[in-house]
This record gives sequence, structure tokens and C-alpha cells, in this order.
Amino acid sequence: MTTARRDTYTPETLLSVAVQVFNERGYDGTSMEHLSKAAGISKSSIYHHVTGKEELLRRAVSRALDGLFGILDEPGANRGRAIERVEHVTRRTVAVLMDELPYVTLLLRVRGNTRTERWALERRREFDHRVADLLKAAAADGDLRTDVDIRLATRLLFGMVNSLVEWYRPLPGGAGDREQVVDTVVRLAFDGLRTGH
Amino acid sequence: MTTARRDTYTPETLLSVAVQVFNERGYDGTSMEHLSKAAGISKSSIYHHVTGKEELLRRAVSRALDGLFGILDEPGANRGRAIERVEHVTRRTVAVLMDELPYVTLLLRVRGNTRTERWALERRREFDHRVADLLKAAAADGDLRTDVDIRLATRLLFGMVNSLVEWYRPLPGGAGDREQVVDTVVRLAFDGLRTGH
Repeated sequence: MTTARRDTYTPETLLSVAVQVFNERGYDGTSMEHLSKAAGISKSSIYHHVTGKEELLRRAVSRALDGLFGILDEPGANRGRAIERVEHVTRRTVAVLMDELPYVTLLLRVRGNTRTERWALERRREFDHRVADLLKAAAADGDLRTDVDIRLATRLLFGMVNSLVEWYRPLPGGAGDREQVVDTVVRLAFDGLRTGH
Repeated sequence: MTTARRDTYTPETLLSVAVQVFNERGYDGTSMEHLSKAAGISKSSIYHHVTGKEELLRRAVSRALDGLFGILDEPGANRGRAIERVEHVTRRTVAVLMDELPYVTLLLRVRGNTRTERWALERRREFDHRVADLLKAAAADGDLRTDVDIRLATRLLFGMVNSLVEWYRPLPGGAGDREQVVDTVVRLAFDGLRTGH
């Protein structure tokens, strides 16, 4: 863990350190002492920026949620056939997940012990419902196979997408397999692995 | 959490209680004290059965791993075209995951801080490699689409399958949507959500 110098500290870098510590130790297992040590600044300096660790959690999961809900306002999520819109949302969800990896990781690990966590879980469910609605619309258009339950399919789709937080790591150069991951998720989810259809 | 009576205690029920506590508190966060309280028996009674919590972890993840590796010895995993074998393994992996839900949940959450955890991670990787090999064989047969990277596809497939531990809960009656979940995973993974191909 890097130790930042006090004079270069901003709320943004504090947030980034906090998210790293939350992901390593779990939110419940993180104390202000841990945050202070990881950030290399005193607890009172942290309290200068935020009211406590719950505020840091709220800011961190808000960043992830803003990224995700932002997708639903994009033209690609609102124009064209439902199947194209759901494909756009899937593609962009994978991209946001990779762009905001530590923030989305934290969001997906939230457990519901505090008010902020329960709010985050509620917002996550809301996002899932919005995507499930798109899938339902695609089914009504006749563009989805009729032998799968949409709710179950939504869960499996998110299961696949969200699994990225467990194994995806950006390449050292910053370039790389990003587009490949996005394309593979969309191909697998919508057309499957099997050839010849 | 149920409190079992001392005179009805068996290594099997102790294991089942331990897995529940490990999944709730995390393995690192569980002490022999926690296990003793949850099981309703003294620590010395637990030590009568096992050398400590790491032995309970080893037994628990072994049960999950035995279930998973057992699949690879089944006729369906060894006969026929590779694509049929990989489909069999996927179908059976989902079934084992549902049958052994707490044990597989624990296996998937193992972090690698102890020798037993590192061994479990190694065995998981071995299982993943065996499935990736089957997928490669299916690709060599021309039965898998050529525009996805097999390693990436394997990860996404397992991501989807393993996500079940996060949301699948058996129905109260014990009957239920089990077959539907298995079928949906296979349909989604191999043929995708989209209709009309």
C-alpha cells in the first residue's frame, strides 16, 4: 500500500485509499485507525474531510452507482429495439465495471449492516430491475428465446458480468484486452458458445 | 442458529455448523469460541473430533471438491463429442453447486491465508483447467465459435455458474426450480439469450 504525503492529500485520493482498504479488509473489518495508517495521515485529518467511514463508503458506492445508472440515460439504452438496448446496457455495464473496478467491487460486496449499505443494495436491485424490464421488452418483441425465465436469465447475466470483479485485472500498460472482454461477454450472453446456429 | 444437543453430536453435524459459521463470519473471522457457541458444545468436545478449525475447513472444502471432481469421472464427461462432455460437466457442476451449496460457497470464498486455503485454491484452479481443456477440445472439433478466447470464455462460464452461491436458495419444500436453473444455465451458456439462430 502506498503512503501518500499529507501535503498532496485530496478527498479524491483519500477515497481511493479507503476503497482499497475496504476491499481488502471488508467494510465491517475496517476501522478509522486502518484508514489512517493506509492513508498515512492522522485520524483528525481524515475527519477534516469526512464525518467517518460510512461517508467514505457512501461516496465510493455512489461513484459505482452513478456509473451504472448513467448507462440507462445513454441514447443507446433508450433508442431502437429492446434487444439492441439491452445489448448496449450489457456492453456498457462491463465497461463501467472495468473502468471503476475497485468501486464496483466494493458495491458488489456490500452486506447491509448499515443504512448506507442497505441503500446501496436497494439501488443495485433497482438497476437490476431496470435491466430485467429491458429483457422483458425484448422478450415481448420476440427477440429472446421463450424457454428461459427472464428473472433467472437476468440473474445469470449479472452473475457472469459481476464475476469480472473476481478475476479481471487491467493489463500493466493500461491498454489491452478490454474490448475483448466486452465483446466476449456480449457474444456469450446473447449468442452462446456453440457454433453452427 | 440452531443449538444442537451434545448427546446427538456427530462429526457430520459439527461440520455442517462450522460451514455455516465460516460462511457467515468468514473463515479468518471465526474462532474456536464462535464454533463452540454455534454448536452448543464445549471447545474441548470439538477438539475431541478435530485438531482445530483448519481441519474443519479442510473437510468442508474437500466435500465440495470431491463433488466437483467426481463429475469429471462420470461417463458423460468422458464419452462422446467434447461439446457434449462440456455441456454435461456444466450441467452437473450447477447441480453439485446446488446440492452442496454451503460447502461450495465456502470453497469459492477461500482466500489463501493458510496452507489448507492455498491447497483448496490450487484444486479449484485444477478443476477450471480440466474444464478449459474440454472447451479447447470442443473448439478443435469446430463446435465452439471461433471468435471467443477459450480462457476468457471459461472464466465467464464459471462466473455465471458460481454466481449461484450468491442468489440461489433452495425452495422451502425442497422441490422446485432446480432443473429449471440447470437448463437455463446450459441454454444461456451454449446457445445464448437471443432467439432466431
